[in-house]
Amino acid sequence: MTDTVIATYWVESALPLQRAAEQMAGEQSTGTFIRVARETDELRARFAAQVVSIEEREPSGRQPLPGATGDPAAIRGGLVRLAFPLDNFGPSIPNLQAAVAGNLFEMRDFASIKLMDLDLPRPFADRYPGPAFGLEGTRRLMGRDTGVMIGTIVKPSIGLSPEELAEVVAELVEAGIDFIKDDELQANGPHSPLRDRVAAVMPVLKAHADRTGRMPLYAFNITDDLDIMRRNHDLVLEAGGTCVMACINMVGLAGVDWLRRHSQLPIHGHRAMFGAVSRSPQVGIHFRAWQKLARLVGVDHLHTNGLHNKFYESDDEVLAAIAAVREPLLGGYGVVPVLSSGQWAGLAHETYAAVGTTDLLTLAGGGIHGHPDGVAAGVASMREAWDAAEHGEPLAERASKVPALSRAIETFGR
Amino acid sequence: MTDTVIATYWVESALPLQRAAEQMAGEQSTGTFIRVARETDELRARFAAQVVSIEEREPSGRQPLPGATGDPAAIRGGLVRLAFPLDNFGPSIPNLQAAVAGNLFEMRDFASIKLMDLDLPRPFADRYPGPAFGLEGTRRLMGRDTGVMIGTIVKPSIGLSPEELAEVVAELVEAGIDFIKDDELQANGPHSPLRDRVAAVMPVLKAHADRTGRMPLYAFNITDDLDIMRRNHDLVLEAGGTCVMACINMVGLAGVDWLRRHSQLPIHGHRAMFGAVSRSPQVGIHFRAWQKLARLVGVDHLHTNGLHNKFYESDDEVLAAIAAVREPLLGGYGVVPVLSSGQWAGLAHETYAAVGTTDLLTLAGGGIHGHPDGVAAGVASMREAWDAAEHGEPLAERASKVPALSRAIETFGR
Repeated sequence: MTDTVIATYWVESALPLQRAAEQMAGEQSTGTFIRVARETDELRARFAAQVVSIEEREPSGRQPLPGATGDPAAIRGGLVRLAFPLDNFGPSIPNLQAAVAGNLFEMRDFASIKLMDLDLPRPFADRYPGPAFGLEGTRRLMGRDTGVMIGTIVKPSIGLSPEELAEVVAELVEAGIDFIKDDELQANGPHSPLRDRVAAVMPVLKAHADRTGRMPLYAFNITDDLDIMRRNHDLVLEAGGTCVMACINMVGLAGVDWLRRHSQLPIHGHRAMFGAVSRSPQVGIHFRAWQKLARLVGVDHLHTNGLHNKFYESDDEVLAAIAAVREPLLGGYGVVPVLSSGQWAGLAHETYAAVGTTDLLTLAGGGIHGHPDGVAAGVASMREAWDAAEHGEPLAERASKVPALSRAIETFGR
Repeated sequence: MTDTVIATYWVESALPLQRAAEQMAGEQSTGTFIRVARETDELRARFAAQVVSIEEREPSGRQPLPGATGDPAAIRGGLVRLAFPLDNFGPSIPNLQAAVAGNLFEMRDFASIKLMDLDLPRPFADRYPGPAFGLEGTRRLMGRDTGVMIGTIVKPSIGLSPEELAEVVAELVEAGIDFIKDDELQANGPHSPLRDRVAAVMPVLKAHADRTGRMPLYAFNITDDLDIMRRNHDLVLEAGGTCVMACINMVGLAGVDWLRRHSQLPIHGHRAMFGAVSRSPQVGIHFRAWQKLARLVGVDHLHTNGLHNKFYESDDEVLAAIAAVREPLLGGYGVVPVLSSGQWAGLAHETYAAVGTTDLLTLAGGGIHGHPDGVAAGVASMREAWDAAEHGEPLAERASKVPALSRAIETFGR
């Protein structure tokens, strides 16, 4: 029997769900409005997508997507699973997307249609090497064997000169940070080119490593046109850097795969712009499906958002995202979940209680840079809070002994 | 004065629109929840995004996006224009997207937030060479100097062996077709690898060219992991092929740019999966904004959909898409609009009346392969209908003289 990909969709349609599911399978198989020459029953049976299952669920009650046909009062909702024969497209992520997504989102039969999950067969594991560093490699490089990994984003996001950036980094490394990343808005513009940032930052990191034996990871944002991104990677590598960041949606999954096959450094995978395909509950691609592809193409760290974040996702969604990323995929593809957005020391206990691990990279921007006593106090507040959480000590108790933490609670604990 | 990018958004928010617009600008400039060290007023003035204008419009009445805050009864709608200083990111399409899209779609302040348009400054033209062939190159290669360019998609989409494909192609070229493309579902799977398809198709095309002096364009779908896509391009080129197809969203805009800088053939830009970001009126990226990026990265042909298509877009949206693609961009970047989906001979008059040009590539799948008298009659029906439309002859009049056309009307003119 041939391998298949199983794709799961949330659909709402005024058609009976069985019929709606058959429309989806048909569009992604033979694909025209009339049966044509050579389209035999045998060909259909062998190559067409097949409906695997339909589970009816309560519809959302949302106004149908534009162009949706049928009586809105007749709309039903459900989870539809389709099987796609791998023989048609092979274990190729770009061509997989044509099959399981392609034109589906444009079909009139659907009031809602969103790709929720993908079950991929073994040949994808043979083709995509996946994360080269993952959790172990990341811990080793930053010299942080246990406990949560604490990081930050350079703030302000943009506008710092390379010299000012070096000052910020010096403060952060002195404060004992494990990881620093460029903001995704900080790329390679004329005001602060990557080359100048690398030249300014690396001596600071190296001097710190010489003194302490530990060099925090600095994820330089190398996102750019692909050949430039590759040169950016080489620039970081040659300067002794130990991490690069790529905005997955800006360079494409295919661009990340291409980078991975060249890269000698961990790839910090930023998910900026993912909201464009994920936020609508009615159309697009759910994080659960997407993160599998991001892991296959080889990011080492993957943004999942954090609890009480400033963005639209609920805590339940965030916890599901962290769990999804930590689930083995085809027996491996382990990446470091990256918690960010509105993070600060006061979220450690709740996060640890919900996630049950410190194999996390938690990034605080304002929660470190905005600490009233400076970034050293910001980092200390995070480290102490996570240590307390891990050792079952209540936040207030630790705060009573650690001024940096009590000040963080006063400032951010609104 | 520094160059800026102007981005236009449709927004709905329970905040006063001025305040909502300022939130957007802030998120995409300094980007954290608290003012931090070194974030001076001077830095903000020079590097932050600025609100250019706000035009209030009637809100949609749709249920807010998930996570949206504020009283739904207070929601207002409007078009917000923001200016982003180019100095922050330079004329880089990947990094431009971080600035103008990035985290915006995830913000809680918005019941709707969609990127509608982009005005790009001159440095983008200096960086991106754009289409290498465009309209003139495409017409020259296919030997069709005037009139609409008539094409088709291989049908059935998948499942044909290379030998059966060669038979289909032989019928089509004999019928006088200008252009044939692989379906986007037909990639490089084990059942019909690209190498075998090229080997089967090219002799048919060459034999036809030897007989007639004209070789129709065959757009082989080379979409794949990037290094494989490049090898696929080389395979087509070495076999004497004259066109390649790439699914823009599967390889990413950055992947297309990378292909363009290597390619020696016209790139047929397929937009499959674009519905994932475009169909929701509440979030994502409008075709008007996206097509500018697709043209900058150098596709020669760009899918716009056609009138009375089988997908969700209205005729008004399709006509706006065709007009957008034909508008000069930074003084150039001319591409061939590709009309497809549900196209057949009977749409020629209405399309020509609305668009006013035959500088179009119109693709009929079922409208050619499903013609009851075969593909030759299918192609003839399309050619005759467009010729009549261009010369002001009513469809019925031409049909009375051309059996292939009258049969098409009987079959498809439901």
